[in-house]
Amino acid sequence: MITPAALHRTVRAALEEDAPWGDITSTVLLPEHAHATADLVAREGGVFSGGDVFAAAFTLTDPGVEVRLRLADGARFERGDVLASVAGSARSLLTAERVALNFAQRMSGIATLTAAYVDAVAGTGVRIADTRKTTPGLREFERHAVLSGGGSNHRRSLSDAVMAKDNHLAVLRQSGHDLASALRAALSRLPHTTHVVVEVDRLDQIPEVLDGGAHTVLLDNFSLEDLRAGVALIAGRAVAEASGGVSLERVRAIAETGVQVISVGALTHSARALDLGLDLRID
Amino acid sequence: MITPAALHRTVRAALEEDAPWGDITSTVLLPEHAHATADLVAREGGVFSGGDVFAAAFTLTDPGVEVRLRLADGARFERGDVLASVAGSARSLLTAERVALNFAQRMSGIATLTAAYVDAVAGTGVRIADTRKTTPGLREFERHAVLSGGGSNHRRSLSDAVMAKDNHLAVLRQSGHDLASALRAALSRLPHTTHVVVEVDRLDQIPEVLDGGAHTVLLDNFSLEDLRAGVALIAGRAVAEASGGVSLERVRAIAETGVQVISVGALTHSARALDLGLDLRID
Amino acid sequence: MITPAALHRTVRAALEEDAPWGDITSTVLLPEHAHATADLVAREGGVFSGGDVFAAAFTLTDPGVEVRLRLADGARFERGDVLASVAGSARSLLTAERVALNFAQRMSGIATLTAAYVDAVAGTGVRIADTRKTTPGLREFERHAVLSGGGSNHRRSLSDAVMAKDNHLAVLRQSGHDLASALRAALSRLPHTTHVVVEVDRLDQIPEVLDGGAHTVLLDNFSLEDLRAGVALIAGRAVAEASGGVSLERVRAIAETGVQVISVGALTHSARALDLGLDLRID
Amino acid sequence: MITPAALHRTVRAALEEDAPWGDITSTVLLPEHAHATADLVAREGGVFSGGDVFAAAFTLTDPGVEVRLRLADGARFERGDVLASVAGSARSLLTAERVALNFAQRMSGIATLTAAYVDAVAGTGVRIADTRKTTPGLREFERHAVLSGGGSNHRRSLSDAVMAKDNHLAVLRQSGHDLASALRAALSRLPHTTHVVVEVDRLDQIPEVLDGGAHTVLLDNFSLEDLRAGVALIAGRAVAEASGGVSLERVRAIAETGVQVISVGALTHSARALDLGLDLRID
Amino acid sequence: MITPAALHRTVRAALEEDAPWGDITSTVLLPEHAHATADLVAREGGVFSGGDVFAAAFTLTDPGVEVRLRLADGARFERGDVLASVAGSARSLLTAERVALNFAQRMSGIATLTAAYVDAVAGTGVRIADTRKTTPGLREFERHAVLSGGGSNHRRSLSDAVMAKDNHLAVLRQSGHDLASALRAALSRLPHTTHVVVEVDRLDQIPEVLDGGAHTVLLDNFSLEDLRAGVALIAGRAVAEASGGVSLERVRAIAETGVQVISVGALTHSARALDLGLDLRID
Amino acid sequence: MITPAALHRTVRAALEEDAPWGDITSTVLLPEHAHATADLVAREGGVFSGGDVFAAAFTLTDPGVEVRLRLADGARFERGDVLASVAGSARSLLTAERVALNFAQRMSGIATLTAAYVDAVAGTGVRIADTRKTTPGLREFERHAVLSGGGSNHRRSLSDAVMAKDNHLAVLRQSGHDLASALRAALSRLPHTTHVVVEVDRLDQIPEVLDGGAHTVLLDNFSLEDLRAGVALIAGRAVAEASGGVSLERVRAIAETGVQVISVGALTHSARALDLGLDLRID
Repeated sequence: MITPAALHRTVRAALEEDAPWGDITSTVLLPEHAHATADLVAREGGVFSGGDVFAAAFTLTDPGVEVRLRLADGARFERGDVLASVAGSARSLLTAERVALNFAQRMSGIATLTAAYVDAVAGTGVRIADTRKTTPGLREFERHAVLSGGGSNHRRSLSDAVMAKDNHLAVLRQSGHDLASALRAALSRLPHTTHVVVEVDRLDQIPEVLDGGAHTVLLDNFSLEDLRAGVALIAGRAVAEASGGVSLERVRAIAETGVQVISVGALTHSARALDLGLDLRID
Repeated sequence: MITPAALHRTVRAALEEDAPWGDITSTVLLPEHAHATADLVAREGGVFSGGDVFAAAFTLTDPGVEVRLRLADGARFERGDVLASVAGSARSLLTAERVALNFAQRMSGIATLTAAYVDAVAGTGVRIADTRKTTPGLREFERHAVLSGGGSNHRRSLSDAVMAKDNHLAVLRQSGHDLASALRAALSRLPHTTHVVVEVDRLDQIPEVLDGGAHTVLLDNFSLEDLRAGVALIAGRAVAEASGGVSLERVRAIAETGVQVISVGALTHSARALDLGLDLRID
Repeated sequence: MITPAALHRTVRAALEEDAPWGDITSTVLLPEHAHATADLVAREGGVFSGGDVFAAAFTLTDPGVEVRLRLADGARFERGDVLASVAGSARSLLTAERVALNFAQRMSGIATLTAAYVDAVAGTGVRIADTRKTTPGLREFERHAVLSGGGSNHRRSLSDAVMAKDNHLAVLRQSGHDLASALRAALSRLPHTTHVVVEVDRLDQIPEVLDGGAHTVLLDNFSLEDLRAGVALIAGRAVAEASGGVSLERVRAIAETGVQVISVGALTHSARALDLGLDLRID
Repeated sequence: MITPAALHRTVRAALEEDAPWGDITSTVLLPEHAHATADLVAREGGVFSGGDVFAAAFTLTDPGVEVRLRLADGARFERGDVLASVAGSARSLLTAERVALNFAQRMSGIATLTAAYVDAVAGTGVRIADTRKTTPGLREFERHAVLSGGGSNHRRSLSDAVMAKDNHLAVLRQSGHDLASALRAALSRLPHTTHVVVEVDRLDQIPEVLDGGAHTVLLDNFSLEDLRAGVALIAGRAVAEASGGVSLERVRAIAETGVQVISVGALTHSARALDLGLDLRID
Repeated sequence: MITPAALHRTVRAALEEDAPWGDITSTVLLPEHAHATADLVAREGGVFSGGDVFAAAFTLTDPGVEVRLRLADGARFERGDVLASVAGSARSLLTAERVALNFAQRMSGIATLTAAYVDAVAGTGVRIADTRKTTPGLREFERHAVLSGGGSNHRRSLSDAVMAKDNHLAVLRQSGHDLASALRAALSRLPHTTHVVVEVDRLDQIPEVLDGGAHTVLLDNFSLEDLRAGVALIAGRAVAEASGGVSLERVRAIAETGVQVISVGALTHSARALDLGLDLRID
Repeated sequence: MITPAALHRTVRAALEEDAPWGDITSTVLLPEHAHATADLVAREGGVFSGGDVFAAAFTLTDPGVEVRLRLADGARFERGDVLASVAGSARSLLTAERVALNFAQRMSGIATLTAAYVDAVAGTGVRIADTRKTTPGLREFERHAVLSGGGSNHRRSLSDAVMAKDNHLAVLRQSGHDLASALRAALSRLPHTTHVVVEVDRLDQIPEVLDGGAHTVLLDNFSLEDLRAGVALIAGRAVAEASGGVSLERVRAIAETGVQVISVGALTHSARALDLGLDLRID
């Protein structure tokens, strides 16, 4: 969740990065009292995300700027639609413009890509979830964008759920530990509220993972046939999650294998910034 | 320039974002003294950037991890090449892995895309420059990646050079100011070391911009023919820079119009993360 | 988990609070090169916690101080035992003493009280868990102390697990929502890795809580008889947790009702600082 | 003194510790516009402290919450009394509740214990003073609570008054320094506004301490008889302060020996949190 | 430029430095509701600077204080003039007074000294510019004061323009590099918006500096005759700047040699604080 | 006292202010491995202060730089003396030079001026003390410089001693309070370790100030004759301090009136930076 404190901190830092000692162009060129209005216009269709962040870029630059969001996060729009309007000092609008767009374009890009995946599995009840492949410093913003697109969030960080991946299992094996016992020992040291995901590469790993008490079995890079077999083996004793090589083309077929969650690194990792622009009118 | 202080601050923040209270998976599952080695392997070819950042993700997690960079930033590599190796506590390697990759993939992606543009204009002597369309919080990292790819940096921020764009000119016009006078007045208030760029949309704006004393004339969204005419009008009295709609296909033709600088938002804005992976071996 | 970064940050802040501009007594009275040794001595028996924190108070004051921990966190000790020794500049030892003791006494006090509860339920397999009734700013330190005493941690904060308490249920009811539906709707918006606890005051609430998909049912202020009935109703479909009015005298009886977790605010809220002292010898 | 800046900083940090990414329970379960009222009710009698801190926990969570303090800090109350009321968004009240209580219970507990000591010496004119045995990070809050209970503050930190204790004297002795000369030398290096306290264990140390120019002589762990003798020896040339083994039972007898100040570590070190609760009504 | 964020940060830090735990004198001595008015009065004539900073010292102490600035930064005043007035709580005025004066006296001192230099070169069109010889932590404040006095700013920091001084040239020479080539190589690595200044000690260095492409030639410690010769050699191909041993007596003669910029370390380095006082009236 | 933490924080901030994104001149012009040596040379005689701060500017820029201080803080030197030497990377020396000098020149200037005042009162036993008229952000550095010059520090801030000045007394009077009672009431609310200074303008105020229990009577702007009368009236019941209009010419006469402390704003307020330079040799 983007808390108000995090929103302010991150947007302020972005504004400071972009104008550590002010916007010298506006200051030396523009009349102090010139007033302007600007519309955030979609140059292509998509799903909106980051309205509050867009607004904060302006209001943290100048509390006198008025921002009117015309769409809520999660709303779909077409090319040419006006997503938001801002009005205030021309200097302030031009100072904040780039930061506001940098956030809104990135977040709406993620929301739009997420929505494409979600649409692809429509009706199956399967969750499309994000991963930790996010931009350093912007994880909560990108998780929010995934929600805007109708997706689900996965664990937030290494601190809030266990996810044992192939490398963890390899270390365990190398150290002579039996997986089921290791998992049970781990569970006894963790809060009873902590969720444990174990990634498997092969069907034959599933029984001991279930035996160890995992709450989710992550079937990584499984064929469709193996996914179906995996879901059957899990048999409701844990959440069945699929990941690896999930493309827009293939996602529906994966969803139809019976898994409950599909996690997709591409949502945050490969989303392209959406083309949004700010059209300014001098009043 | 990524200073050591900025490097530490940003990588530490990314590590803290990804594990605010530690990596519970490694802590509860892996033996404390297991040791491992891992290679950063290219899953596709490209240009490397972010070696120091990749290294810092490990050494700030655990000063005991040894990192060996096998390529310098700016070096080209092929699919399958080993770019760097790390060795140390298995727990530490797995804790730092994701953050290290998130940086290196993003930075190498930008360097690789930049190199494609630079290659396209090879022999013309034209600079390929970045813009302010960078990821909030990561501007210096992305500027560095552009340098790794053989590109040039543009102004760092709104505080260190003047760039008067169409909207600034519109406000000035609306306020009844004459551009050349406004530019001369601005120059008199700025340090004599401050560079002034003015963006023009039409050839007929160039004379008054030169008259105002601009150091660079930015020809925005000009046809090739108009670029050539613009360069002729500028006649060496200012730097001629082109921007707007610069694709890999079109960039060489633009370079051949005689402009000295081509600025390309896509370098940072649309670069795709490069596919790099960490292959771990338990010792 | 107390990360190295959090350890440093918190101990440094405590040292700065206690000597914002240095320790004027040591500076104006003690010879710069006087060297001393000191033992951390137990003035009463208990369970140790906070060894690393105690050590950091000295080494962050003066990296030249050598600290030898003689007990690991979680070890039991008797009155008169030496728990740790420090050696170095007399000035530095006297400057860091109070902060080191303030942490170690508080953390060992919590570990000792927790161990009493854990001992009381020995053999039942029931967890003794902490709550959010911790000292502002010291939550991770106090959670660690609970682990030292053999207890378990509950959720870390409002951000990492859902816990619907009586007041939440009252608001829901007042707003005309049906609990089971509200829980199912909430689960669909949360990551599939998020654990949901629902607190109930009466047995008749249990069926709809289970129906809503809660992972833990928290039986608050139940009689022993009702606890037994609650455990029977839950029947393994969720974790059964007890809380409210848990005293050392009563905790075993509660544990024997069949609940799996007993959460005890007193662990952190009412633990008395243990009496530990620093005995100094001038070398 | 708790400055507004320190109040905000500390309460914000506590709120962030308790909900780093928001309160997911309230967000996913409660209607956004549900409104509620809550009373801070005493479950036992005592002395109030921390009204502003309690209020800040709510208003920093949500500036829309209205807080009405019904008692001033320092006021006494009985079981069942309403100490404060809050009204606003149900989500906000439930998010801030725990942090608000954690502060108010701790501070009122200290104020109540302090008042018991102050009451015990009523009429003697003796000060009951605190020590540096405070919770790391909360010293100003606990010093304020001592004032609420009618007590006095001692020096704030190692930086603002000299206090030479047994260990300092031992180092001096070991280094061959004469105490009176050492004190006079120290005084000449300190601001003339700096107060010097010297702790003594035996009556025969008092003359040289006075000779050295100490402003306060701290009689540590003296018998009542020796305290009387010490007061006579000091004879008004310095403040006479007692410390060590000060219990509620013994404090009046100590006060009647003629000392002017009694410092009591227990005020902050062993105060029990007072039982205060928040009773919520949905509007 | 002093941004609002920098203004707040720096003034808050100064207030916190001067009253880390509040102003105990006002708190224990003055009635809480006493109200007062105070005038900022010039005890000598000069040029005003720092009005916003003066105001912020009061309003950040207490938002209820009203500040009326009677002069704009850059305005001249005589002894006895009232520069600003403040009204509000007597406690707040006395708490903020010293910090407000410390800033205003220093900044107005710099503005006044700068104006003396600017007056001395009146009519020549030559810029009087500052240097990096500023007070650590206050650079933007002192640069602003120079502007208030009619002066110009030079580069802000080591990061935003190149200035190769004698020592740089000596290192280059020692390393066997040819200056013109080194400059051209440097220019190719820098943004095209970065300005390059090269300092020379002798006339014969000028041709290679121009050949290398420097934008400004800094003639350091040149005689008036050599300055004239240098200006002739530069012949408009770069900015001609003079520095070194610039006194108020000599500055006009330097300006008349034809240089365009004279940089003067003394503006910030040796400016004396102006004598301004706060006259308080109790209402 | 300048603590190591404060030293690092302040010097790092100054380095960051002077090179937020590195020193582009050194980076683009100097060979990475060029090594150099430099001496800190006195261009005029004085008293040294700031050796550690000078050193930290280099070692925080580059831990590989070796710094040798040849004089301790407080030592006197003549024109031409070498005060310190540094050796290391040429880039690092040139990057840190300005910040190192900015600190050392300012601090040595204060020490030198203080020594002049201290010399002027030699043999009288009177303290020359500083005031709060220090540079915002640098108070501890300037207090240290005063000690280097043989002076004394006064209270550090508004938080650590009471000083009631004319305006405080005027507010009290206006509010109908009697000074002696107000002082006694204040003393009862303050820690017994807090020192109380009261400033008086006239001899007839002294009795009630003594009656109120002030520890120091500050005789502000008194004639020599009145100072003598004031000392007689105080008669050892409080410290007698003089301030106001203290010049180097007049300070000995003031000291001979019998006051014990003379506080001098000029020490920090009007000290001129000493002329120190860094002479570099390429190795």
